[in-house]
Amino acid sequence: MQTNPMLQQLNFLREIDRLKSVIRQSPLLDQSRKENSAEHSWHLAMYALLLHDHAASTVNIERVIKMLLIHDIVEVDVGDTPIHSGASAQDQAQQECLAAERLFGLLPQAQAADLLALWHEFEAANSEDAKFAKALDRVQPLLINVATDGGTWTENNVSLEMVLQRYGPTIERGSPALWSHCEQMAREYFGRT
Amino acid sequence: MQTNPMLQQLNFLREIDRLKSVIRQSPLLDQSRKENSAEHSWHLAMYALLLHDHAASTVNIERVIKMLLIHDIVEVDVGDTPIHSGASAQDQAQQECLAAERLFGLLPQAQAADLLALWHEFEAANSEDAKFAKALDRVQPLLINVATDGGTWTENNVSLEMVLQRYGPTIERGSPALWSHCEQMAREYFGRT
Ligand SMILES: [Ca+2]
Repeated sequence: MQTNPMLQQLNFLREIDRLKSVIRQSPLLDQSRKENSAEHSWHLAMYALLLHDHAASTVNIERVIKMLLIHDIVEVDVGDTPIHSGASAQDQAQQECLAAERLFGLLPQAQAADLLALWHEFEAANSEDAKFAKALDRVQPLLINVATDGGTWTENNVSLEMVLQRYGPTIERGSPALWSHCEQMAREYFGRT
Repeated sequence: MQTNPMLQQLNFLREIDRLKSVIRQSPLLDQSRKENSAEHSWHLAMYALLLHDHAASTVNIERVIKMLLIHDIVEVDVGDTPIHSGASAQDQAQQECLAAERLFGLLPQAQAADLLALWHEFEAANSEDAKFAKALDRVQPLLINVATDGGTWTENNVSLEMVLQRYGPTIERGSPALWSHCEQMAREYFGRT
């Protein structure tokens, strides 16, 4: 096992290159292909950087950005679980937890502990920062669907009621202002179909 | 023109979705395809998050991360200019500058000014934060090439001397420790070929 900190870090950075090959359900806006989890993480970090004024309460935007940069890294081991898949939440949480321990465990001890704690905070959504991060992680795919003629909603026969139920509480908790906009966009979209 | 700040921000976030379709020269580590500039930006932000202890001097890591998240956004308008392309640096700088003004100009005024200044700081590399960010932007493709049997070096007939000259000064200025590792990796790679 590698014990030089820099080599441990570079090894981790090689390992997470595979996040670029984890394919999500959502398409790019030009619908040329599906989005991958690495570019999704970049996009969410940009959402945080730009939209933090709209958070439900004051957030530490740098922590939110870090959280979003690492939030999907577990998918390197376990893949992406789509919101409309109906997979067992408990099984998934357990597998992701093991993946987080293995992956962050590749890093020097203090860094591993920090990032594992930040990842757990995001998963548990037990802080204002995590609640805002979770909200953005729902806003982005919702707006993609609205902008791509239904996207994953059309593919999965998702109704307006399901959208309000699956996206609403998480987005509204982190950002009432963004939810107000998203709800309006969703209602307009389903009004057209 | 849109004057509601949130709608301006969401419009910008839609516009930069196209960074996911800007293809770089570097391959993914598994060589399944070329890397795009959005996932590259995510990867670099992760490099910064993990490697900041190795910066030449103390850096504000949150600023470095923000810089790297936005550093390639101009490519939405002007595309990626490969390091080994020999394109006129002055032409390129001018086009990128116009692209930065157009793209960040989509945002509310204060945010546009902040991000434009941060982007110029990166380009000019006139701060410790920018020097470290620039170093990472060279470290990542160098290590990809080492790990993928030469990558863009093989394609462009790049020699060890050219690697030392094109990557060395920028990496060493921002992180002597990372350059020491990168130089060793490059020498080993060219020693094998
Ligand atoms: Ca770059």
